[in-house]
Amino acid sequence: MKQSLGAKTLIFPAPVLMVGTYDQTGKPNLMNAAWGGICCSDPPCVTVSLRKARHSYAGIVERKAFTVGIANEMKMTEADYVGISSGKDVDKFSIANLTPVRSELVDAPYAEEFPIILECRLLHTLEIGIHTQFIGEIVDVKADKATLGEDGLPDILKIKPLVYDTAHKGYHAVGPLLGKAFSIGKKLL
Amino acid sequence: MKQSLGAKTLIFPAPVLMVGTYDQTGKPNLMNAAWGGICCSDPPCVTVSLRKARHSYAGIVERKAFTVGIANEMKMTEADYVGISSGKDVDKFSIANLTPVRSELVDAPYAEEFPIILECRLLHTLEIGIHTQFIGEIVDVKADKATLGEDGLPDILKIKPLVYDTAHKGYHAVGPLLGKAFSIGKKLL
Repeated sequence: MKQSLGAKTLIFPAPVLMVGTYDQTGKPNLMNAAWGGICCSDPPCVTVSLRKARHSYAGIVERKAFTVGIANEMKMTEADYVGISSGKDVDKFSIANLTPVRSELVDAPYAEEFPIILECRLLHTLEIGIHTQFIGEIVDVKADKATLGEDGLPDILKIKPLVYDTAHKGYHAVGPLLGKAFSIGKKLL
Repeated sequence: MKQSLGAKTLIFPAPVLMVGTYDQTGKPNLMNAAWGGICCSDPPCVTVSLRKARHSYAGIVERKAFTVGIANEMKMTEADYVGISSGKDVDKFSIANLTPVRSELVDAPYAEEFPIILECRLLHTLEIGIHTQFIGEIVDVKADKATLGEDGLPDILKIKPLVYDTAHKGYHAVGPLLGKAFSIGKKLL
């Protein structure tokens, strides 16, 4: 039996994305966005949605670039902090003791402490409602070497990314592997 | 130390979305999409990205509607199956023993067996590269009563949504709650 809950932004899971930008004074800034995800395989693109009031907004519009870091268990406090403070008022990198690194590929910074970084050039901007959706072309992914598996790809159980619960606003861990995609369903073919 | 991995669609976590549509013959169809997420709070909107070759594509374009179900542990085999078969060839609902339900709000079906359903009317269509991004306004969310907590909102640990690993193409479980958002970061304020 299903129950109507009304028009709500309920999706499970959502990511916890660390959006890195330079502000209008050139100061590196970082914000926390759960509204985003991959939107195209070729060119590889990622979306993040921001309200215009966010300090990061102008940085993306003006520099046509941003980075996306994957928040993880080890930096959960820092990831939450950058979502509840504003770069208008403080230097979040400094207060959270995060190291700003200038991307060599796009005009945006990232925090060295997050294990996976997507460097993005702005490809599309779409006004939806109270949020603006920015689509970034992923020009490179930088990964902590310690998170890489033997095949050279990141291991999700080493990254330990945060999983955002949109209903109760909690950060969860990623649990064990349950099955392989494009494989476990073959028994129904 | 970070290592460059090239331009790849690596994000952690990604969701496992069951996109429900009617095809051109009126047959209900379901596909598996990891490229999507919430993109606006008001109006509440969700994105899903599809290749034009997918059988679901015309259904969204013509009926300007789709549903998004949240795939979960109990239906992992079925969720994977609808991602590796095509509605051009088979009736996926029938083969996967899923029950098609006609939405009363939008011109699209959903599978009763998935615990959370977003009913969406098409708001925007954006061609990006090999994928087309569809933005749907969420007009209602239907949830299995058994997944609701005492506050009437879905409990992620009762839903047991699948977490998609974009690097190794695996389905993972959601792990325990680690901290509360908009709260745990306050210690740095």
